Amino acid sequence: MVKLADLDWKTYESRVANGEAVILLPIGAIEQHGPHMSMNPDVLIPEAISCSVAEQLVNALVAHPISYGYKSQVKSGGGNFFPGTTCIDGKTLIDMIRDVVVAYARHGNRKFVLVNGHYENSMFIVEGIDLALERLRHDGIDANVMLLSYWDYVNQDTIEQVFPDGFTGWDVEHGGVLETSLMLHLHPELVNMDKVIDQAPATFPPYDIFPSDRGWVPSHGTLSSARKATAESGKLLMDVCVKGISSSIQMQFSD
Amino acid sequence: MVKLADLDWKTYESRVANGEAVILLPIGAIEQHGPHMSMNPDVLIPEAISCSVAEQLVNALVAHPISYGYKSQVKSGGGNFFPGTTCIDGKTLIDMIRDVVVAYARHGNRKFVLVNGHYENSMFIVEGIDLALERLRHDGIDANVMLLSYWDYVNQDTIEQVFPDGFTGWDVEHGGVLETSLMLHLHPELVNMDKVIDQAPATFPPYDIFPSDRGWVPSHGTLSSARKATAESGKLLMDVCVKGISSSIQMQFSD
Amino acid sequence: MVKLADLDWKTYESRVANGEAVILLPIGAIEQHGPHMSMNPDVLIPEAISCSVAEQLVNALVAHPISYGYKSQVKSGGGNFFPGTTCIDGKTLIDMIRDVVVAYARHGNRKFVLVNGHYENSMFIVEGIDLALERLRHDGIDANVMLLSYWDYVNQDTIEQVFPDGFTGWDVEHGGVLETSLMLHLHPELVNMDKVIDQAPATFPPYDIFPSDRGWVPSHGTLSSARKATAESGKLLMDVCVKGISSSIQMQFSD
Amino acid sequence: MVKLADLDWKTYESRVANGEAVILLPIGAIEQHGPHMSMNPDVLIPEAISCSVAEQLVNALVAHPISYGYKSQVKSGGGNFFPGTTCIDGKTLIDMIRDVVVAYARHGNRKFVLVNGHYENSMFIVEGIDLALERLRHDGIDANVMLLSYWDYVNQDTIEQVFPDGFTGWDVEHGGVLETSLMLHLHPELVNMDKVIDQAPATFPPYDIFPSDRGWVPSHGTLSSARKATAESGKLLMDVCVKGISSSIQMQFSD
Amino acid sequence: MVKLADLDWKTYESRVANGEAVILLPIGAIEQHGPHMSMNPDVLIPEAISCSVAEQLVNALVAHPISYGYKSQVKSGGGNFFPGTTCIDGKTLIDMIRDVVVAYARHGNRKFVLVNGHYENSMFIVEGIDLALERLRHDGIDANVMLLSYWDYVNQDTIEQVFPDGFTGWDVEHGGVLETSLMLHLHPELVNMDKVIDQAPATFPPYDIFPSDRGWVPSHGTLSSARKATAESGKLLMDVCVKGISSSIQMQFSD
Amino acid sequence: MVKLADLDWKTYESRVANGEAVILLPIGAIEQHGPHMSMNPDVLIPEAISCSVAEQLVNALVAHPISYGYKSQVKSGGGNFFPGTTCIDGKTLIDMIRDVVVAYARHGNRKFVLVNGHYENSMFIVEGIDLALERLRHDGIDANVMLLSYWDYVNQDTIEQVFPDGFTGWDVEHGGVLETSLMLHLHPELVNMDKVIDQAPATFPPYDIFPSDRGWVPSHGTLSSARKATAESGKLLMDVCVKGISSSIQMQFSD
Repeated sequence: MVKLADLDWKTYESRVANGEAVILLPIGAIEQHGPHMSMNPDVLIPEAISCSVAEQLVNALVAHPISYGYKSQVKSGGGNFFPGTTCIDGKTLIDMIRDVVVAYARHGNRKFVLVNGHYENSMFIVEGIDLALERLRHDGIDANVMLLSYWDYVNQDTIEQVFPDGFTGWDVEHGGVLETSLMLHLHPELVNMDKVIDQAPATFPPYDIFPSDRGWVPSHGTLSSARKATAESGKLLMDVCVKGISSSIQMQFSD
Repeated sequence: MVKLADLDWKTYESRVANGEAVILLPIGAIEQHGPHMSMNPDVLIPEAISCSVAEQLVNALVAHPISYGYKSQVKSGGGNFFPGTTCIDGKTLIDMIRDVVVAYARHGNRKFVLVNGHYENSMFIVEGIDLALERLRHDGIDANVMLLSYWDYVNQDTIEQVFPDGFTGWDVEHGGVLETSLMLHLHPELVNMDKVIDQAPATFPPYDIFPSDRGWVPSHGTLSSARKATAESGKLLMDVCVKGISSSIQMQFSD
Repeated sequence: MVKLADLDWKTYESRVANGEAVILLPIGAIEQHGPHMSMNPDVLIPEAISCSVAEQLVNALVAHPISYGYKSQVKSGGGNFFPGTTCIDGKTLIDMIRDVVVAYARHGNRKFVLVNGHYENSMFIVEGIDLALERLRHDGIDANVMLLSYWDYVNQDTIEQVFPDGFTGWDVEHGGVLETSLMLHLHPELVNMDKVIDQAPATFPPYDIFPSDRGWVPSHGTLSSARKATAESGKLLMDVCVKGISSSIQMQFSD
Repeated sequence: MVKLADLDWKTYESRVANGEAVILLPIGAIEQHGPHMSMNPDVLIPEAISCSVAEQLVNALVAHPISYGYKSQVKSGGGNFFPGTTCIDGKTLIDMIRDVVVAYARHGNRKFVLVNGHYENSMFIVEGIDLALERLRHDGIDANVMLLSYWDYVNQDTIEQVFPDGFTGWDVEHGGVLETSLMLHLHPELVNMDKVIDQAPATFPPYDIFPSDRGWVPSHGTLSSARKATAESGKLLMDVCVKGISSSIQMQFSD
Repeated sequence: MVKLADLDWKTYESRVANGEAVILLPIGAIEQHGPHMSMNPDVLIPEAISCSVAEQLVNALVAHPISYGYKSQVKSGGGNFFPGTTCIDGKTLIDMIRDVVVAYARHGNRKFVLVNGHYENSMFIVEGIDLALERLRHDGIDANVMLLSYWDYVNQDTIEQVFPDGFTGWDVEHGGVLETSLMLHLHPELVNMDKVIDQAPATFPPYDIFPSDRGWVPSHGTLSSARKATAESGKLLMDVCVKGISSSIQMQFSD
Repeated sequence: MVKLADLDWKTYESRVANGEAVILLPIGAIEQHGPHMSMNPDVLIPEAISCSVAEQLVNALVAHPISYGYKSQVKSGGGNFFPGTTCIDGKTLIDMIRDVVVAYARHGNRKFVLVNGHYENSMFIVEGIDLALERLRHDGIDANVMLLSYWDYVNQDTIEQVFPDGFTGWDVEHGGVLETSLMLHLHPELVNMDKVIDQAPATFPPYDIFPSDRGWVPSHGTLSSARKATAESGKLLMDVCVKGISSSIQMQFSD
């Protein structure tokens, strides 16, 4: 049992009592991921990875995820105009991260790992952490926070296995082979490979335009084809992320 | 399939296309509920109720819950100092409600039902709705939002069945018979009746004090005894809430 | 002389010098209370109660009231759409409470009693207090704040005297016997009993709807009849509140 | 009866029905004004002037004052460190002004006069008005707001009568002849001329320093002597302000 | 080399190492100044004065200016409706001041001089400083901040030299002799005296009106005539400001 | 003359009258860039590029830069703890972008190009634009905003010329060959090649840690060696950026 909200508070208290527990906090988004997949991979994948990581560690717990994320951008998530893409303001995300980190730290926790599953969240999480640490510092509390996006743990070997025909870059991996494979491995009931649209990777000019130009984005919402996604690739990706993240945490937090 | 985040966006789009779909949004909290139960009943119960309600209706979907809620208060939730009780600032909750309602409305939805599972959230949800409606109105969008707390649908008959020895009031039902019964019905694996502390209902002076006085609260965190909670009572409570809420929605939204 | 703003600052300084003075802060609203009464009872009543309480105590002062309150709700105040009902955003009220408590604490005061006269204010006051205490704590100041709504001090005996035909609950007491009696006792010039509309208490469904449905509220704005209000009942109510609140303060603050 | 909060809402509604009523909103502060005077002149004076002005006009009402103001500055109010000086953050005042103007405009009012009694408030009121007008404009409402500080209506003639020995400028008039005379005229019970400290006007360098240097301010808190204040001067000052303001409003709003 | 952003960080570090360096921070606005002058005098003048002052002092550096300022007001800057007048919200300016002062203080600086060049900025700067000092204090840092507007250093002698025909007051000096002379001295290439509109000083009623009435302001945007502006007067003004400010700093900060 | 703040407002008005002018807004940061270079390259480079681009276009102007940027991150800018690195909160930057874009749009401008020179700014600029467009939309104004970071216009050919020994990626280009070459070309007086520290590019783990670990960053602050920087490379880089950006604008805005 690694999901902390599934514990009763006395059990939780005993697990975190010495301040040595590692709290993993998954952060995602509700966002379209093409016609072949549900809209919650950015929540489900980091939560699943966090749980597997927690099981590798001596004393780690997974916090309830922060599920609504920053506004989807055209080049990384298709854009904030698709039905189902449900995003929040930057300031709201900053405050949510700040408050949640502060609250877990007030329970005595000092070691945090924020596991991001939605590219657009990153800088707002950074700011939320910075404000949380300031607020805690003013209460005399020093906490340490690791921040990572799980895909940064996919190494060259895995890329070559998962993309045998060549990798076109993380930029266009929205709803593509990476996320679809992981979802096939973790939640096959939420993927329908028959609905995958096969397409060349989207290409974009070197700038962004606001309001978004919907003509820039394939109308079905993914930025590359998920046709070659498999549950096996999903397992490979899962394994490399879990292993890498566990190792980083052990190194950083001596867990 | 009523959880909208489990749908792909094309299916979601077709479900909400005419603006007639009812979007149910569960809003909860991560908060201790005594030594005998997990810390997520305020999320799981309104989500389960929302799903059952959605199944009764012609065209309704359940949005991903808003899971972190306003600071637990001594007299209603035991207080914000228990390990595991993980709460956010009032302004953050206001903004989160505002942003999420606005986002779903921008998909074309006009009928919302916010299903609250955490007493302390209520007024911040009210303000979030008010700000959302203003923001939408400035974009020329008129939406309608119902707000309810599920326990307000428990009628006198059910109270008498569930509390045969007399009902001491909702105030002290934190971690008591109501929530425990519902959890036994919905998620028995998250309840351990052996750990229930039997006690007389907590009593409080007519004022509040800040910083909280921990001496006011039973040290185990619940405000009344859950000893008489049963899955059967949970089913009764579930049924009366689902039936009442469904009926309110049908009346209000002609669904 | 218990209103602190009526004192010159040297006198005030000498009264609060040791940090032992109790500062009572009335918090109200400008809100319609039916065709028979002025729109300021939510300010005038808690201020009058605070003054009487202060006179009972060894060392207490009444701060200038915070007069604009949170948005009137249909079921408790008739709703925010009546001409004359003049309400502020939740975040503004939170900040106002925070700033005013911080300011009085910086004068050396450590004992606060916030006396609320407008139901809808409560949770925003709670958050304002929480933020004030954090801000003060970061400056090394520990203050204690009691929060109460005066009607919570009306006991069963008084209810039976004031409502001899049966009490229909605080919910519908907006502009009804409670507030009208208190105003008849305190400010008879602001009440015109000839304009009282006699009516059965308003009833509401178990949910709220936004934007408000004006059809839910009696068109004259009160939620129950004030016909049986009398100055004598007002005195009874006043006395029981003043006595109870004084006693709570003495117990809590050893004043 | 010109104080709108003293009216019942039906009477108020009939007074403001056509959008032609002028709403005067006094804005002040709770701030020390020397050892000889209470701490509320910045509220009481603009409220009294507003009431007198309203009586001169065809259709005008005085709103309940906004009583807590921006932080007292050394050169204009003695500074924010005197016991009793009770001030709020700039953003809080901005929001309060915005919300209150918006609320009165939603009743149908379109003509506002904000009567300021505390120098330090001015720019925050300006911003509050600007944000209110934007918010209203987005709702399709065009309102007009006059802003004035009452002392700007004291003309040369009156200055010569009130300060026969020469006028040292508004800068140092904090707790001096102007305010003390007005209070002697309006609220003699809140002034004790025996406690006036006679002193030369304070002088300051051309810069400000933060945190404030208390050594810059006379220890009793006023910036000039009130010794020559009289109720007669107060009446003169009152008259010239009321006449001038009434005339400005009539010209601007054709009232 | 006194502009700190022109230094490399190692040089900067050595200059500020002991916390004794004076950091001058110019704060201005982008605002129309009539048809004869560029729109940046409120930035360029305080920056030039700051640089000259820094050269007089033992150890002083000039920070990169804060260039966008608070909304231009009709009576002091012509108003916020002229093309080219580009202003920001009050809260944004408050936050910008707060953040920049905090950042420089975190480098070890403790002595700040904020040199304002835009009248409307003043109170928002005051609030920004107050919030900065609170934030720093919570981190255990005590800093001292001087705030000045450069024109407050123009003494009577200089006024008589620069305005031989009589001085009509700072109020109407927007785009007039003062600023134009300084710009002729500092940046003659940004002034075209042929385009000066000769006019009597603008006069205004004792109140403000919002939305602004453009008819109150001369259509060319200045409030008085710059015809008598000369580079010589500019040098005189520059000298008196630099000398006075340097002297204030030396006195206040023993530099 | 392409810097709009150098124009008088009548000239500016005539340039932007038809809403067809392109407004380029440089956005940077004050941040250490190693011991060999000043701390303002992130401001100076995008401003210089903007000016050159404006000269290529039919009708374009360069706004006064926004000079203070978001907090420097370890992996992209060395981190927010170096003396001289002077950064602002995320919310402040969001608001600043929003306000400045809104202000220029109120002058009648509808075509904006935001030219970013500081990697960490990007997502906060995105949010600022989004809020600006919403605010403008509520006033009935539709504007279009391009956002770009200039280095995204450096193509493969130029990379090969500038980095003949191989390119190690933009990540570590902080204070390296790219920025140093551009500064040597634009502001050679602000670079001292004798102080360049020659080093291998910094390498980092796949996660971030907060508070920052200074041991991760070379103590002199750059992330790669600038030894091979030349003014010639700077000219090449400048040319490719100016040409590419001009072309993008012409395509997008038909200028």
